[in-house]
Amino acid sequence: MDKPYFRELFHPQLVNPVFIEGLPGFGNVGKIAARLLVKSTQAKLFTELYSPFLPDYVIVNKEGICRPPRYEFYVSSTEKTVFIILTGDAQPSVDDITAHYEQCGEILDFIAKHECRFIVTLGGLPLPQPAGEVYVAATSQELAADFEKKGALIYGKGRIMGATGLLLGLAKKRGLEGITLLGATKGVRSDHEAGLSVFNFLTKAFGIKVE
Amino acid sequence: MDKPYFRELFHPQLVNPVFIEGLPGFGNVGKIAARLLVKSTQAKLFTELYSPFLPDYVIVNKEGICRPPRYEFYVSSTEKTVFIILTGDAQPSVDDITAHYEQCGEILDFIAKHECRFIVTLGGLPLPQPAGEVYVAATSQELAADFEKKGALIYGKGRIMGATGLLLGLAKKRGLEGITLLGATKGVRSDHEAGLSVFNFLTKAFGIKVE
Amino acid sequence: MDKPYFRELFHPQLVNPVFIEGLPGFGNVGKIAARLLVKSTQAKLFTELYSPFLPDYVIVNKEGICRPPRYEFYVSSTEKTVFIILTGDAQPSVDDITAHYEQCGEILDFIAKHECRFIVTLGGLPLPQPAGEVYVAATSQELAADFEKKGALIYGKGRIMGATGLLLGLAKKRGLEGITLLGATKGVRSDHEAGLSVFNFLTKAFGIKVE
Amino acid sequence: MDKPYFRELFHPQLVNPVFIEGLPGFGNVGKIAARLLVKSTQAKLFTELYSPFLPDYVIVNKEGICRPPRYEFYVSSTEKTVFIILTGDAQPSVDDITAHYEQCGEILDFIAKHECRFIVTLGGLPLPQPAGEVYVAATSQELAADFEKKGALIYGKGRIMGATGLLLGLAKKRGLEGITLLGATKGVRSDHEAGLSVFNFLTKAFGIKVE
Repeated sequence: MDKPYFRELFHPQLVNPVFIEGLPGFGNVGKIAARLLVKSTQAKLFTELYSPFLPDYVIVNKEGICRPPRYEFYVSSTEKTVFIILTGDAQPSVDDITAHYEQCGEILDFIAKHECRFIVTLGGLPLPQPAGEVYVAATSQELAADFEKKGALIYGKGRIMGATGLLLGLAKKRGLEGITLLGATKGVRSDHEAGLSVFNFLTKAFGIKVE
Repeated sequence: MDKPYFRELFHPQLVNPVFIEGLPGFGNVGKIAARLLVKSTQAKLFTELYSPFLPDYVIVNKEGICRPPRYEFYVSSTEKTVFIILTGDAQPSVDDITAHYEQCGEILDFIAKHECRFIVTLGGLPLPQPAGEVYVAATSQELAADFEKKGALIYGKGRIMGATGLLLGLAKKRGLEGITLLGATKGVRSDHEAGLSVFNFLTKAFGIKVE
Repeated sequence: MDKPYFRELFHPQLVNPVFIEGLPGFGNVGKIAARLLVKSTQAKLFTELYSPFLPDYVIVNKEGICRPPRYEFYVSSTEKTVFIILTGDAQPSVDDITAHYEQCGEILDFIAKHECRFIVTLGGLPLPQPAGEVYVAATSQELAADFEKKGALIYGKGRIMGATGLLLGLAKKRGLEGITLLGATKGVRSDHEAGLSVFNFLTKAFGIKVE
Repeated sequence: MDKPYFRELFHPQLVNPVFIEGLPGFGNVGKIAARLLVKSTQAKLFTELYSPFLPDYVIVNKEGICRPPRYEFYVSSTEKTVFIILTGDAQPSVDDITAHYEQCGEILDFIAKHECRFIVTLGGLPLPQPAGEVYVAATSQELAADFEKKGALIYGKGRIMGATGLLLGLAKKRGLEGITLLGATKGVRSDHEAGLSVFNFLTKAFGIKVE
């Protein structure tokens, strides 16, 4: 295996889906928020992504069954919006920059096939004194302002590392629109609270009813 | 040389062979067990694998003759089972994740040509107080349970690094079945005892008569 | 994205353009000098280069708008000379040598399409006691001597790292001519003074009128 | 540039040439010995090799003229033997194993075009108390024994790093024959004495008359 490989479990017909990404990263904020969204919207796993850019180990569950690390694409239909939600076990190695670009390119190709035009990436923003804030950066000033009105703070003058940043940047190059939502976190341990803040912001902003 | 290269010495016709892998790793447990199997079953070297993912030195023997590092594929017929046994001098660098995926992919392509549908990977499991235990993880719960009955402990909730894990994980993705057997070891030095434990378990489980 | 990608904003028709490169590096001298040249000659951005060899983050401006790191090609016509000016956000990782070669090769292909036959790379030269000196190295002894007469010191017996050196070296292999101008700098922080020295030398040497 | 590139200055017609390699390494022993051979046999540079696997800087000479690092192939005819001598500025990064394999493969392709069937690689062997010894390892026991008779010590049970080892190992895989000659050296600084020992052994063993 020398290229990312998509294993499709079923092929949903989607109209105008919004793509949500939440992978491991600072405080695991993005992954936690994405998992909460998967659960609360009863999203269904429809595609797995295996990749030579993911770590070279297998993950063994408590029954002793093993599988390679992977990305998972879920689909869920809420009242207002259809979502494709991406989460996963790991990101490419920080040392392999080209891998990040290739992996992100493959993901954008994938969501393009599903006619997706809007993306939301989720992550953590390391701060010394996090207090539940959610920050936003966007592909355009209008979008940033729009989500500022919904209660996010503008994340200005900085960098966003890994898939959370790169997916948005490369999506913009392809003419897509989107935002990144960053939950303030100390960033070292898994930060469930920050993940919940991002999730709550997301559900409110997209009008998702959570049971 | 920019791709793995198989040098076939002879081409055996095999029916339902079981693939056994034992490469250098924690305590060299896998390699030691595989070497014991090669010896005890009088296995014959039929293919060598050279690869740009293996170290960039040559190995010199005591007569001063040099050769590049390689993997070796042996074939042996026991009463009940035909085995393809893989062992070798080294693994790809831990830094080169993609190399691990490519190398494992090439090996799985190779055993597919020999109609192999079942694989057993051998390795070491680093434990502070190893006591001769053999752990099992598998591609399915039935298989794990099956080898638990034969005396192995379930290896649950963890990761298996390198070829030992990845071969099994990628084999599963291709629809093959298999297990990994991990001998408990302190893991630093070559651990002949742990290798022997794995070998003994293997011979018993597969009904191999050892002279 | 697994290859550098040029996004052309408009296609200028250029006669005998001189290529000027100034990317981040020691004291950011090259980038500062190139930016000064862009400003003072009212150069226009005509092509952007995105690349999997550039860092895997996005840059967010103070309005919260993000974009991937990139190289920028500007064009400006001065009384005597037409310039293509390259500057950018970052260079490939120092660990990825092949990336440097590929990126430089792509840039040389690009300027060849614009009929460019002469290149000037700008950078910093780390010295313990910098005093505003500008050093020159060149593709030929005549050129080095020529710019020595214009006031530069010969940079002899050394190495020039990264794009500043490699672009010139590879350009020479393709039959182009050129020079590198290195501003003496302590090299740690952004050294505006050293950048200005290089810029001043450049404008004088190429007879650029600065308002 | 994403592949090694050979620049041929002239094309010599050679009968049964012997290939000699001496690149930078432990104590620069190989490079020093190769340079001595170039000088003493008045060898002529006929091909240069540029490569994205060599360092990403340019080398500036004392006149301020720059060029990328390169390998150089020389040809020289002695009374008994025609030699192709390879020396150069650097080796691929120790971190880039695949680069070493590719670079060596390209070199072996190149000498195959010149009908070369025998190779001699030169290097240093780090020892705590070097005393001018020259060690030999070979592609066969006969060859090792042959050069032992000529005064070399057998280098047994070890590894030979980098091009010195890998060229010989990969040459063997292609059916060529050859030896490596290793001069004992402390290995840290350039060791002219060890280089001279290897050179002297070489001239004696191949009956080269040195003026």
